[in-house]
Amino acid sequence: MAELTHLDAEGKARMVDIGGKPETRRVAIAEGRIAMSDAALAAIRDCTVLKGDVLAAARIAGIMAAKKTAELIPLCHPLALDSVTIDFDFDDRGLRAVSAATLTGRTGVEMEALTAVSVALLTIYDMVKAIDKGMIIGGIRLIQKRGGKSGTWRAVD
Amino acid sequence: MAELTHLDAEGKARMVDIGGKPETRRVAIAEGRIAMSDAALAAIRDCTVLKGDVLAAARIAGIMAAKKTAELIPLCHPLALDSVTIDFDFDDRGLRAVSAATLTGRTGVEMEALTAVSVALLTIYDMVKAIDKGMIIGGIRLIQKRGGKSGTWRAVD
Amino acid sequence: MAELTHLDAEGKARMVDIGGKPETRRVAIAEGRIAMSDAALAAIRDCTVLKGDVLAAARIAGIMAAKKTAELIPLCHPLALDSVTIDFDFDDRGLRAVSAATLTGRTGVEMEALTAVSVALLTIYDMVKAIDKGMIIGGIRLIQKRGGKSGTWRAVD
Amino acid sequence: MAELTHLDAEGKARMVDIGGKPETRRVAIAEGRIAMSDAALAAIRDCTVLKGDVLAAARIAGIMAAKKTAELIPLCHPLALDSVTIDFDFDDRGLRAVSAATLTGRTGVEMEALTAVSVALLTIYDMVKAIDKGMIIGGIRLIQKRGGKSGTWRAVD
Amino acid sequence: MAELTHLDAEGKARMVDIGGKPETRRVAIAEGRIAMSDAALAAIRDCTVLKGDVLAAARIAGIMAAKKTAELIPLCHPLALDSVTIDFDFDDRGLRAVSAATLTGRTGVEMEALTAVSVALLTIYDMVKAIDKGMIIGGIRLIQKRGGKSGTWRAVD
Amino acid sequence: MAELTHLDAEGKARMVDIGGKPETRRVAIAEGRIAMSDAALAAIRDCTVLKGDVLAAARIAGIMAAKKTAELIPLCHPLALDSVTIDFDFDDRGLRAVSAATLTGRTGVEMEALTAVSVALLTIYDMVKAIDKGMIIGGIRLIQKRGGKSGTWRAVD
Repeated sequence: MAELTHLDAEGKARMVDIGGKPETRRVAIAEGRIAMSDAALAAIRDCTVLKGDVLAAARIAGIMAAKKTAELIPLCHPLALDSVTIDFDFDDRGLRAVSAATLTGRTGVEMEALTAVSVALLTIYDMVKAIDKGMIIGGIRLIQKRGGKSGTWRAVD
Repeated sequence: MAELTHLDAEGKARMVDIGGKPETRRVAIAEGRIAMSDAALAAIRDCTVLKGDVLAAARIAGIMAAKKTAELIPLCHPLALDSVTIDFDFDDRGLRAVSAATLTGRTGVEMEALTAVSVALLTIYDMVKAIDKGMIIGGIRLIQKRGGKSGTWRAVD
Repeated sequence: MAELTHLDAEGKARMVDIGGKPETRRVAIAEGRIAMSDAALAAIRDCTVLKGDVLAAARIAGIMAAKKTAELIPLCHPLALDSVTIDFDFDDRGLRAVSAATLTGRTGVEMEALTAVSVALLTIYDMVKAIDKGMIIGGIRLIQKRGGKSGTWRAVD
Repeated sequence: MAELTHLDAEGKARMVDIGGKPETRRVAIAEGRIAMSDAALAAIRDCTVLKGDVLAAARIAGIMAAKKTAELIPLCHPLALDSVTIDFDFDDRGLRAVSAATLTGRTGVEMEALTAVSVALLTIYDMVKAIDKGMIIGGIRLIQKRGGKSGTWRAVD
Repeated sequence: MAELTHLDAEGKARMVDIGGKPETRRVAIAEGRIAMSDAALAAIRDCTVLKGDVLAAARIAGIMAAKKTAELIPLCHPLALDSVTIDFDFDDRGLRAVSAATLTGRTGVEMEALTAVSVALLTIYDMVKAIDKGMIIGGIRLIQKRGGKSGTWRAVD
Repeated sequence: MAELTHLDAEGKARMVDIGGKPETRRVAIAEGRIAMSDAALAAIRDCTVLKGDVLAAARIAGIMAAKKTAELIPLCHPLALDSVTIDFDFDDRGLRAVSAATLTGRTGVEMEALTAVSVALLTIYDMVKAIDKGMIIGGIRLIQKRGGKSGTWRAVD
């Protein structure tokens, strides 16, 4: 089980000790999608045109969730994030959310970016579910991470 | 914008008033998946065989997240959940998580079940990411909801 | 000290027991203002016209804060709010926020409405402070409360 | 919209990136007031003389709220505060609260001091509202800030 | 494992379903102690005489912690508590804390009373640790519970 | 009252200013026990053998609680912990929990280790209380602290 850094040699959960690591600039970018019916997609588009709050609420929810990552994911370290951003774009089946999180610190911010994307998409689901309960959230993944000992990583494709 | 119940006539976000609704038994069941490399999947399987904490941690994280739904999703009502459960099964590409949430109350618990699944899968990502950063979380959707005025809803397959 | 219901006979803080009270429909409406320079006010107005997120963020922050009232105010009861809304209007010196909170329950929701207004206005301060650090938040008060044994109360103009 | 640092060029909310800033000593001092009836004011004064918990509870609530600022204000950065203090003094119409927050870090602590004052005053409202529902909270403003690139700022007057 | 209600037949954690239970009045009373050096005890006594905030802070912390029980204890249900109180008395080795929690609801409030006592005593430890790091917290136990199907339970002295 | 660092000269609670202190490596180790009936102890042992989640849940709860220390204990500083671990061992009357917390920072982590132990033991109480309501939590104390100006401290015994 040595490979699973969040478990000790006996398989018990632990918060990995990052105390010896230097503080470096960390960046993580994650993405995800929500697929929905045409009616649901049209409602969000209309709302956006008309200054409705769907994407604004989802963006705020995602940013606030990034700050809560260590409360949600048991073995994540509490981090003083430098920044979080979330962007949305429409495609013909729904919406794509992309989040970037940055930190000057001792551990990566992948979980913060992934959490931001997840909660932003859940918020869209919540606001549109009266029209379409069958929406599907997927494709949540890390696109890129930079900084730290392991250096830059990019998703294949 | 009348269709988007979480926006008022001018497109402003609001928490819908559920005060006039009767308290009824509500159930929601949601699912999601995480796809990973063979090496990552083998590590979780081994850990599970050896009493490691990966799935136990993910289950606890998901249950605790369900209780935080109203803190995460801006327009969700705070709810005194009757129960939350999370189960995992392996398939050949990774893991599937299923969560059921129940309530005796005035609004549905879809968001609680979906949040539980999302955070449980993010926790698995966190614990296994040292082996595989390319894991993808997807297929997060409502399978079934029961109770309330709109009655039973089931996902089309 | 008998008058201060949140203290016992010796002056010690306590959470008042509401267990014997019936569940009734409760409503509270509160308001507050933020005064700012012409430049700051113009920036918000422009942003609003251009679909910027200032008021949307403040509204979401206020609604989420209402749900956190019992975490912030030591002797407040945790409540399963039926609804929260926040509205803003401009006057020539700044902005006015009005919040309405409702509950079917055993105690009033004045603190929830007041907390929503306070945090919404603090959020505006935060978003505009790069232009004007001298903004002043004031006039935070209860306008009306309905329901419960003490019945309806209205602020004297 | 360039002036509103918390919005990007398209008016979307973002958490400003503070990663490039040096860590410096930051101080912010904020104040606020609550005006109340003579009866309410007398009750707090009596309670204070008699070791009642009103001001102690308000002080604790304000300090704890300062630590929650980033949870309440959507675009605030999570900060590891060095200190928070809150003081109260009586005037003939009510009470004045003053809070000082300090940090060794990359961004200012104005919002922490303002949040501490706001929640301390809301706590007083909560504890005294059985006597006087017409209390008004106002004059919440930054008095002084020190540290960081923009240096010292003091409120006029 | 049938005896451990918080585990299912396979030993997996779950939040027990309380949906079928009637709402009844629940009461739980818990206690705990902190033992300390004479110097530490004298400091608290002096402070109490002089209106210092040690016990007031501990009382507030305990009450607020009771409201956070479901956030802390993974399988606890979120509850809308009717009341929480905490009292302290001195003995010659330190302090005893007693907490009572009440609820009109579907499950017991033992954990809320025990959590209130634990956090109140930890707060005393924190405030006095500059004088005595060797303080010991103990004797945390349920004294009495009433209400619900299992009726009244009392600790064997 | 000068000895009680968390109170000012007038006995008012304050968060001590740690801004002038250097960042050093801090370690704190705390322990605690839960005593229970033979039947309860046997149930946990059996569950552990059978891969049940009791100790895994308690460990996760304790780690997550350590991260919440500044939310629970009013005058604790928010800290970006480097690591937290929790271990359990059985003795013939029950279980002993030991937690170690580490930080690179300006203040000690005693409260984090003590909070982790307390919440881990409360979680065990919660999961086993259907079998034995008379369990007693005790012996919660600091075993060792290292780092900072005051250097190393060890519990006598």
